[in-house]
Amino acid sequence: MKGITLSPSQQWHPTTFNSTPKQPNRTHNATLLQLNTNTTTPSRRNPLPSFAINPSKTPTPTPSPTTHQTKNNPPLVVVGSANADIYVEIDRLPKEGETISAKTGQTLAGGKGANQAACGGKLSYPTYFVGQVGEDAHGRSITEALEGGGVHLDYLNIVSAAPTGHAVVMLQSDGQNSIIIVGGANMCCWPEKLSDFDLEVVRNAGIVLLQREIPDSVNSQVAKAARSAGVPVILDAGGMEAPIPVELLSFVNIFSPNETELARLTGMPTESFEQISQAVAKCHEMGVKQVLVKLGAKGSALFEEGEEPLRQPIVSASRVLDTTGAGDTFTAAFAVALVEGKSKKECLRFAAAAASLCVQVKGAIPSMPDRKAVLDLI
Amino acid sequence: MKGITLSPSQQWHPTTFNSTPKQPNRTHNATLLQLNTNTTTPSRRNPLPSFAINPSKTPTPTPSPTTHQTKNNPPLVVVGSANADIYVEIDRLPKEGETISAKTGQTLAGGKGANQAACGGKLSYPTYFVGQVGEDAHGRSITEALEGGGVHLDYLNIVSAAPTGHAVVMLQSDGQNSIIIVGGANMCCWPEKLSDFDLEVVRNAGIVLLQREIPDSVNSQVAKAARSAGVPVILDAGGMEAPIPVELLSFVNIFSPNETELARLTGMPTESFEQISQAVAKCHEMGVKQVLVKLGAKGSALFEEGEEPLRQPIVSASRVLDTTGAGDTFTAAFAVALVEGKSKKECLRFAAAAASLCVQVKGAIPSMPDRKAVLDLI
Repeated sequence: MKGITLSPSQQWHPTTFNSTPKQPNRTHNATLLQLNTNTTTPSRRNPLPSFAINPSKTPTPTPSPTTHQTKNNPPLVVVGSANADIYVEIDRLPKEGETISAKTGQTLAGGKGANQAACGGKLSYPTYFVGQVGEDAHGRSITEALEGGGVHLDYLNIVSAAPTGHAVVMLQSDGQNSIIIVGGANMCCWPEKLSDFDLEVVRNAGIVLLQREIPDSVNSQVAKAARSAGVPVILDAGGMEAPIPVELLSFVNIFSPNETELARLTGMPTESFEQISQAVAKCHEMGVKQVLVKLGAKGSALFEEGEEPLRQPIVSASRVLDTTGAGDTFTAAFAVALVEGKSKKECLRFAAAAASLCVQVKGAIPSMPDRKAVLDLI
Repeated sequence: MKGITLSPSQQWHPTTFNSTPKQPNRTHNATLLQLNTNTTTPSRRNPLPSFAINPSKTPTPTPSPTTHQTKNNPPLVVVGSANADIYVEIDRLPKEGETISAKTGQTLAGGKGANQAACGGKLSYPTYFVGQVGEDAHGRSITEALEGGGVHLDYLNIVSAAPTGHAVVMLQSDGQNSIIIVGGANMCCWPEKLSDFDLEVVRNAGIVLLQREIPDSVNSQVAKAARSAGVPVILDAGGMEAPIPVELLSFVNIFSPNETELARLTGMPTESFEQISQAVAKCHEMGVKQVLVKLGAKGSALFEEGEEPLRQPIVSASRVLDTTGAGDTFTAAFAVALVEGKSKKECLRFAAAAASLCVQVKGAIPSMPDRKAVLDLI
């Protein structure tokens, strides 16, 4: 578990957990989506899967503020981490045995999985989150944040043997952050073999979104089930720094690193666009046909093997208040646009607009835009 | 705020926050206890104050498992801190800019004020907690832990401008602990002048228990109000390392440090009993007539100016699992026995038995014994 990086944590965000969620429970006898046995892999250019969803059992999407029609759309399924991010602002790190006082502190719902699911929900696309939290206050707060974002939590598992994953983010005066991650329910207590109940929601998804803050073995099973059902899989490279198992990569349709992650995973420099292109070529060699690279202020680029890359500059923000969650917003918004059948170019634009809105508000989940705001910006 | 020490944190405890508390609210128009205008200071040897409580308005104590009669007893009022203690077990501290993974982590309700109040409640003595938490998950969990312990929370204030106080306790493999304290609602947002509502419960108390994890100015106002109403005040020295204001000490009947705190506050060595006696003599010079010193495995001693100290060895425990909260249990149990009119010798024995039971169970609040267990041990 060593060497995991955290998604947020460059900036400070002010919103706290502040109400009491209902406790959802994974109910293993409920089948919300009709089982799909179609194993044909659809064209990667048209990610909408070919199987039918039983409309009477389709989850009701959060009402959209626009005329956007989500009814009968197969859902976005995010499988990943849910985390309590505990920020403490300090002058310097304590020494061994030392007690120091923080200037201030705040605990926020986060985790790349929860962030990306919240983004899907906020964009009024039917979104399921598959993940694990502990039986504790942090777990309840994350649950509440996701419910507030309109995310379906039927597949959120509450485990008693581990705390909710959390991270202590020590923000120092000199701009350095030191982070201690407790994997907790994100990293342990997963069944060795995922249940059919969990895999069904994956097989019936319109698109599946993964990151690297839960065990690779879970991601691999999910990606394999999705692939066998013809459901496209996006893997966000954020999370563990360990090499990605070849098996997992082989089931992924779109791999999405940022520049740093791309450099680390390929062992190649990523300073110029030329270097990035070469590193992406190595990803293609590793078996991933499409690579969606997040380039921060330089925008993004989608590389498809054998084709010219599609480049998307950032959609400029009137003010940049807090970049926390911007990468998660970008990836999730891209996934939503893709499952809705937008062109790759449109997907990039939609994602860039969503990320631009995200950086203008403090916090990760609180800053994720609704669909109307994104469409207004495009 | 620099240099605060934390109460627990030497050991690991396994219990988490795990249910959803009701949110209490300080209601400023409720007067639970009849206002007492008697300003005569009672004899310190008989701390039961002379004023009458209106029985119809006396809070109902948690039913006692013994025949112990608490009805009409003026309550124990604990004014102090409520904290979420976030324990992370790590191999070593992270460096600047580094992300590391913890072996495990756990978040528990604590804070010396909340611990001592919980102990009073568990001992089935009517106990009020006066303190502040934020509008967040940690605050709700502490509320729940206190309610579970039978503590009355009518005077718990929920503040919106600060998080619940919390502490990150980094337990290292070499046995060293480094701690970062976020004072939050414990240290800020107190009214400059405490309301009559808050001071009423203090004036109507049977005994008042203070520690040093909230501002000295709050403690001073409380101690002054108690003194003017003839209510005895015990000040536990645990918390801030800063010198104790002379004004505060002047209102305190019993000052209770451990050896380390006694050494720090007097600037004198406290290794031998002779040295401790000399340091206590300095406390007497500072204006405190009674000093209750906690000596860890060596037991405790109550020094009253001009008299021979009363010494109490530990009540030996069949196993020592976790000393967290043992000091808080000792002080609170002593206060309960004192307000019940037991002799000083009996108070020491009662407190030692309670502390002995505390160290046999993991956790702070979860390990606090009920009255029957303490009486069975004596």
